[in-house]
Amino acid sequence: MAQQGFLYETVADNIARRIGSGVMQPGDKMPSLRAMSTELGISISTVMQAYGLLESRGLIETLPQSGHYVRHSTARPLELPAITSPDMERTNVPGNRMLHDFLHSAANPEHVQLGCAAPSLDFLPVKRMASILGRCVREQTEAAMQYQFPPGLPELRRQIAARSLKWMGELSSRDILITSGGMDALNLTLQALTKPGDTVAVESPTFFGLLQVLEHHGLRALELPTSPQTGMDLRALEEAASVRRIRAVLTIPCFSNPLGSLMPDQSKQKLLELAAKHDFMVLEDDIYGELQYSGRRPTPIKAWDTEGRVVLCSSFSKSLAPGLRIGWIAAGQSLLGEMEQLQFNTTIGAPSIQQLALADFLASGAYDAHLRRFRRTLRDCMERCSLSVREHFPRGTRLTRPSGGYVLWVELPGGANAIRLFQAAMAEGISIAPGPIFTSQARYGNCIRLNCALRWTDEVEGAIQRLGQLAREQG
Amino acid sequence: MAQQGFLYETVADNIARRIGSGVMQPGDKMPSLRAMSTELGISISTVMQAYGLLESRGLIETLPQSGHYVRHSTARPLELPAITSPDMERTNVPGNRMLHDFLHSAANPEHVQLGCAAPSLDFLPVKRMASILGRCVREQTEAAMQYQFPPGLPELRRQIAARSLKWMGELSSRDILITSGGMDALNLTLQALTKPGDTVAVESPTFFGLLQVLEHHGLRALELPTSPQTGMDLRALEEAASVRRIRAVLTIPCFSNPLGSLMPDQSKQKLLELAAKHDFMVLEDDIYGELQYSGRRPTPIKAWDTEGRVVLCSSFSKSLAPGLRIGWIAAGQSLLGEMEQLQFNTTIGAPSIQQLALADFLASGAYDAHLRRFRRTLRDCMERCSLSVREHFPRGTRLTRPSGGYVLWVELPGGANAIRLFQAAMAEGISIAPGPIFTSQARYGNCIRLNCALRWTDEVEGAIQRLGQLAREQG
Repeated sequence: MAQQGFLYETVADNIARRIGSGVMQPGDKMPSLRAMSTELGISISTVMQAYGLLESRGLIETLPQSGHYVRHSTARPLELPAITSPDMERTNVPGNRMLHDFLHSAANPEHVQLGCAAPSLDFLPVKRMASILGRCVREQTEAAMQYQFPPGLPELRRQIAARSLKWMGELSSRDILITSGGMDALNLTLQALTKPGDTVAVESPTFFGLLQVLEHHGLRALELPTSPQTGMDLRALEEAASVRRIRAVLTIPCFSNPLGSLMPDQSKQKLLELAAKHDFMVLEDDIYGELQYSGRRPTPIKAWDTEGRVVLCSSFSKSLAPGLRIGWIAAGQSLLGEMEQLQFNTTIGAPSIQQLALADFLASGAYDAHLRRFRRTLRDCMERCSLSVREHFPRGTRLTRPSGGYVLWVELPGGANAIRLFQAAMAEGISIAPGPIFTSQARYGNCIRLNCALRWTDEVEGAIQRLGQLAREQG
Repeated sequence: MAQQGFLYETVADNIARRIGSGVMQPGDKMPSLRAMSTELGISISTVMQAYGLLESRGLIETLPQSGHYVRHSTARPLELPAITSPDMERTNVPGNRMLHDFLHSAANPEHVQLGCAAPSLDFLPVKRMASILGRCVREQTEAAMQYQFPPGLPELRRQIAARSLKWMGELSSRDILITSGGMDALNLTLQALTKPGDTVAVESPTFFGLLQVLEHHGLRALELPTSPQTGMDLRALEEAASVRRIRAVLTIPCFSNPLGSLMPDQSKQKLLELAAKHDFMVLEDDIYGELQYSGRRPTPIKAWDTEGRVVLCSSFSKSLAPGLRIGWIAAGQSLLGEMEQLQFNTTIGAPSIQQLALADFLASGAYDAHLRRFRRTLRDCMERCSLSVREHFPRGTRLTRPSGGYVLWVELPGGANAIRLFQAAMAEGISIAPGPIFTSQARYGNCIRLNCALRWTDEVEGAIQRLGQLAREQG
């Protein structure tokens, strides 16, 4: 049940699942308002709101003087991509020219940004943040202009630690180090945990930034088979760990990027057992963890960590504002001390103004209010994009079905070539992320990642349609 | 001649030099206002202003009904420290526990901050910056909240490049990469220029942060003899380069930290000849380069760089506001491209808000106006601190005489122990920087660095007096 949503949303979610699972078939007539009201024991007006929402999401349609029907185009959800099967020989992450081209396309404000995994600013409380930033520089000018040395602003660390209550965590401000965004957090952690030449296991495909960070520190990426639903394949991890030394597992368990998979709680505990048995650390990237579409936020692996084996990293770039450049690390005292020193050696500390403003924003409760709205918005965005892909992409296309975050992974059929598609799309002002940048191997050449956190406009729908056409032309 | 100061300041500087050099002796009666006016061909009121300034700097005093006299305490400037003679075997920079204690003391707002090399915020245009920051987040909210991908905000790069005109440089915005402060700039540059195990030559003593960065990247520091007046000893560098491979020279030629030395222009050109002959790169840290006490800003080595051998790094932390965390790198295109990629892998990019505000601030001309005031303030601070050290420290103390920046290097006589002095001072709420953190060798145990960019108060004067007492007790 949705924890903080309205009843009609919960009802709509339930019905959407029935449609998604095929219990309700395309063209099926929906129960009348009265029948549904009786069946579920809710008011007719709530059913009306739920049907309205389903219609706005494109799942059902109203035929005049007839009633509501399950839409045809939604009939058969696209098949999920299969569990991946990367080469499990450890590899040195190569430099990636493709990535360079992608980053330039992703930074182009003229392009329809299905490429960069960043939300439309329309969805973010930028006015509110701007006003708080303005007040902070005015009222706390000295603190804003002076260094904030590691571990960072005490009040911000306290606010971040307090958020762990949402998953029954017990972090205190002493457990937190503020960083210059999420990449800085991952860099500092890997430097503290590893030495060049060490092996680090990751999902495959995984966020290209993680692979770059591994390369940066002379580490070997061990890519593991990964399910688009349940994430990293722990049997494969166990097999690998029993024949070679794995120093750390770097995972995005809650809404991984790019697959959007969510590791079940049992698997999270299993991963910790493996960590103890084979003596590796777990670096948990939780950057999408608060962006679930319904219910409670999924529990981080850190929640079950009794031995100090998990370093939890996150940032506010995906959920609040990319430009803030504020992230954080939660870890044990001795690791944290080491990372403070490393931070001093690389950036001195995170920017002061943003720390002050963020502490204020979190204390005001505005972040949670924003997240409630943002999650609903993202769910709608994802449904619209998914429907559009189903409608416009060639037969045989496979598509992920994330329950959080804002990226879709599209596996194209047959002879499709993601790099050629990327280039053709870029030439038409559409930015997408080609599959090959999400691996250090020669893989995912028929896959693309789409950022769906965009206001739904004719331009966006047109871009997805055009991508489908381009893909067809390759087929 | 002071480029942008007033005539009376130039006159006062001239007289101060005569006093400093011993041409005018303690107790000497100064020429009368009229006599000086005639001698120099300037108005009596200008002489009055000059004498007033010299009096406020503690160099001369007025005896009632008698006239102006050279003050006694300024009689004999303290001797300069000798050229250093570090061990020129390359060393691996060790972790430095002392540094850890220093950083905690330097971050303590309760301490008299003679430790951290950061100016009092009283001297910085923090209100103006705060108001510009407020306007930027209000009027350019979207840009403030979105990523600023490498190489950074075009307008800020343009403004920074344009400042090279002050030293006849011809940098364009395409030569500039914006970073998260100066340490980030040095880190990115060293990563692009070196491999672990490479040798990097530095001044000795040098800024502890540079030594930490070298350690961080597995580099070997080759500490070179250094003069408190003319900086790095190039003969020693040449000898070293002829027997071993030096990958890069990391230098602070314009007002080095901690010695405050200024490399003469001829030496800068000589250094470039050596770089060509022995095929090494020069990493030039120019963070204090605009903080000269009189005349034009000294010319960076980069000005003579025709072969792309110099990477120029700087930041606004020392001259505008430490908390901004904005620095920059000027280098050739292919190096810059490599560093952009490295930056993406570590911090994605520098914080957006500060880039917008800084571009605005630079464009308004406010930075140059601030620098003009700030330089005069720093000169006064340094003179006051120097006088106070002369007055209160034990006989035999040696002291640097920088012509820019804001740190003094104090060499204590006899059995003085800088670490014990640091600890004793810290216990009394006075933060200083002990000499041993400025080397990777067991050296400078009788030296301390003092930050002088503080508003002159009884508390500050009392702290220097107390340091002198503590040093005497050790002698």
